[in-house]
Amino acid sequence: MGKTKESFVNMAVDKYLSLLRPYADVEIVTVKEEVVKNKNAALSKEASRILTKARHFVLLSERGRLMDSEEFAGFIDKRRDVTFVIGGPYGVAESVYEQAETVLSLSPMTFTHEMSRIILLEQLYRAITIIKGTRYHH
Amino acid sequence: MGKTKESFVNMAVDKYLSLLRPYADVEIVTVKEEVVKNKNAALSKEASRILTKARHFVLLSERGRLMDSEEFAGFIDKRRDVTFVIGGPYGVAESVYEQAETVLSLSPMTFTHEMSRIILLEQLYRAITIIKGTRYHH
Repeated sequence: MGKTKESFVNMAVDKYLSLLRPYADVEIVTVKEEVVKNKNAALSKEASRILTKARHFVLLSERGRLMDSEEFAGFIDKRRDVTFVIGGPYGVAESVYEQAETVLSLSPMTFTHEMSRIILLEQLYRAITIIKGTRYHH
Repeated sequence: MGKTKESFVNMAVDKYLSLLRPYADVEIVTVKEEVVKNKNAALSKEASRILTKARHFVLLSERGRLMDSEEFAGFIDKRRDVTFVIGGPYGVAESVYEQAETVLSLSPMTFTHEMSRIILLEQLYRAITIIKGTRYHH
């Protein structure tokens, strides 16, 4: 949800994308963020934008299921195809939770949605190194 | 443990340091990383470097206690002074675990020690906004 102007985020995203690309087809789809005047109205508009782009997806939310990196690698390994949805600064509407195949939490701590992008990509790369048994994961 | 050459990490660290500095005295102490030939020997040398710099500290480790951002804010709020230790890519020796006042986990997932630096600083800033009741934390 939303483009980022934060340059460290864009640099980190580019770094992990280039690490991932030899192993996986990764595409980032940015959905237009709504200007928040009324939070619920904005989330509901964002929800319909998300739900037209993604039908089967894993939603990232601190309310979701915690996994360690090995479990996450197993979770990825079982799938040919997976879409992750990361909400905006105010999260996502309940309708997005209802539609999600799995709700995954990166941590019980609240992270910014921008940090979540970096962490998700880093965990995807880590998952691949765990699956392939290469040396990155300590 | 160790300087980072990763520019996105340095940019993110600088960003959160400048957000934190109006509210807190924050100092980052970098401890020299050991070249790893024998892992245990390297961790043990690093451990003595850490333990000469820090006596009372919170160790960050995925083996530690999980907290949500509100609990972490409460944890910070009770202390006048707090030192966090983040190990190197291979973690830290058991002697550092034994000396730690608290072992704190940012997530059950394994993060790089560089990502942990960014996440810790972001959580410290978030903790301050929670304590002060300002608008950053959603």
